[in-house]
Amino acid sequence: MMYYPPSIRDLIKNITRLPGIGEKTAERLALHILHAPREQAQALAQSIMALKDNIRRCKRCFGLSDTEVCRICSNPKRDGARLCVVELPADMISIEKSGAFFGVYHILDGALSPMDGVGPDDIRIRELVRRVAAEKIEEVVVATNTSVEGEATATYIYQRLKDTGVKVTRIASGIPMGGDLKYVDQLTIKRALDSRHAI
Amino acid sequence: MMYYPPSIRDLIKNITRLPGIGEKTAERLALHILHAPREQAQALAQSIMALKDNIRRCKRCFGLSDTEVCRICSNPKRDGARLCVVELPADMISIEKSGAFFGVYHILDGALSPMDGVGPDDIRIRELVRRVAAEKIEEVVVATNTSVEGEATATYIYQRLKDTGVKVTRIASGIPMGGDLKYVDQLTIKRALDSRHAI
Repeated sequence: MMYYPPSIRDLIKNITRLPGIGEKTAERLALHILHAPREQAQALAQSIMALKDNIRRCKRCFGLSDTEVCRICSNPKRDGARLCVVELPADMISIEKSGAFFGVYHILDGALSPMDGVGPDDIRIRELVRRVAAEKIEEVVVATNTSVEGEATATYIYQRLKDTGVKVTRIASGIPMGGDLKYVDQLTIKRALDSRHAI
Repeated sequence: MMYYPPSIRDLIKNITRLPGIGEKTAERLALHILHAPREQAQALAQSIMALKDNIRRCKRCFGLSDTEVCRICSNPKRDGARLCVVELPADMISIEKSGAFFGVYHILDGALSPMDGVGPDDIRIRELVRRVAAEKIEEVVVATNTSVEGEATATYIYQRLKDTGVKVTRIASGIPMGGDLKYVDQLTIKRALDSRHAI
């Protein structure tokens, strides 16, 4: 890297900071950018800054958005009566990719974790309770992770909402599809057995 | 990808254009940039544009440089009497990395290839001849590739310079270090045998 002029060295250094990119790959990418058309390099540089400038949180669901209200919240075809609660924006993307949910979302931005000092006021529980009171919501689908923190958060949300008349559901946990029983951990197997249902 | 807001989608699309980066990796890098400190994203974007703005060819050796004359050509400790001729800037970097050459360079920007219509006037032969006449050069080390084109270019350079009194040498070809004879092609073995020397 020290054999390159400073401009190439700087770019290699900045690319190496990205996760999973070693110096060899960074060198290859920098040399590609060097020889690529100016427009392509410019488009890349501009989209990096546009991302930092434009992405904000949707003021309704707190998902990632370019606009004040995100595309899902402002889509009249989405079922506003079904509200899916997730920990992070990335979880919302995963559920969208499944194509199995047509309602709207609420991003908590975390999960309850007393050990780490994360209480109900540190995640967007208050905003959730407010939405349930203000919007015509029939069902709250709690899709927090199946970790200790995610489960605790789901239980807490149920406690907070149980007197509102809104149905609170939890996504099922069990053996992953295509999962091989001998590789699945015992807690998951126990949960799958406890939740067994008639075929 | 269609599940992301436009700003994230644009960045993923532009990252995917880089060689060897698939959509999954691009997604991971874009989300990293989204969550990275603004300064880090800015440094990356700026170094991309700085590269395109600043990198030019050294007016003496035609290597990559941020300045009119590159760091090697302007380094008084380099031996200006030894001139190494290479096809591309990347070849010069490889030789620099070896740490075995302390002279200066001349980048041809290609090799003779009559089949592709590349003649002596299409690569920097004229500039080479001019440098040999103008500078105090004792030895021209021809380090073009050992391909048909590189060999032809080396022979042509020897023909053009043989009456100038300057010594023209060619880098040795043979079995690569650590090379296993049974995996080395026959042409390389023939060349290695022809160039054998006393131990």
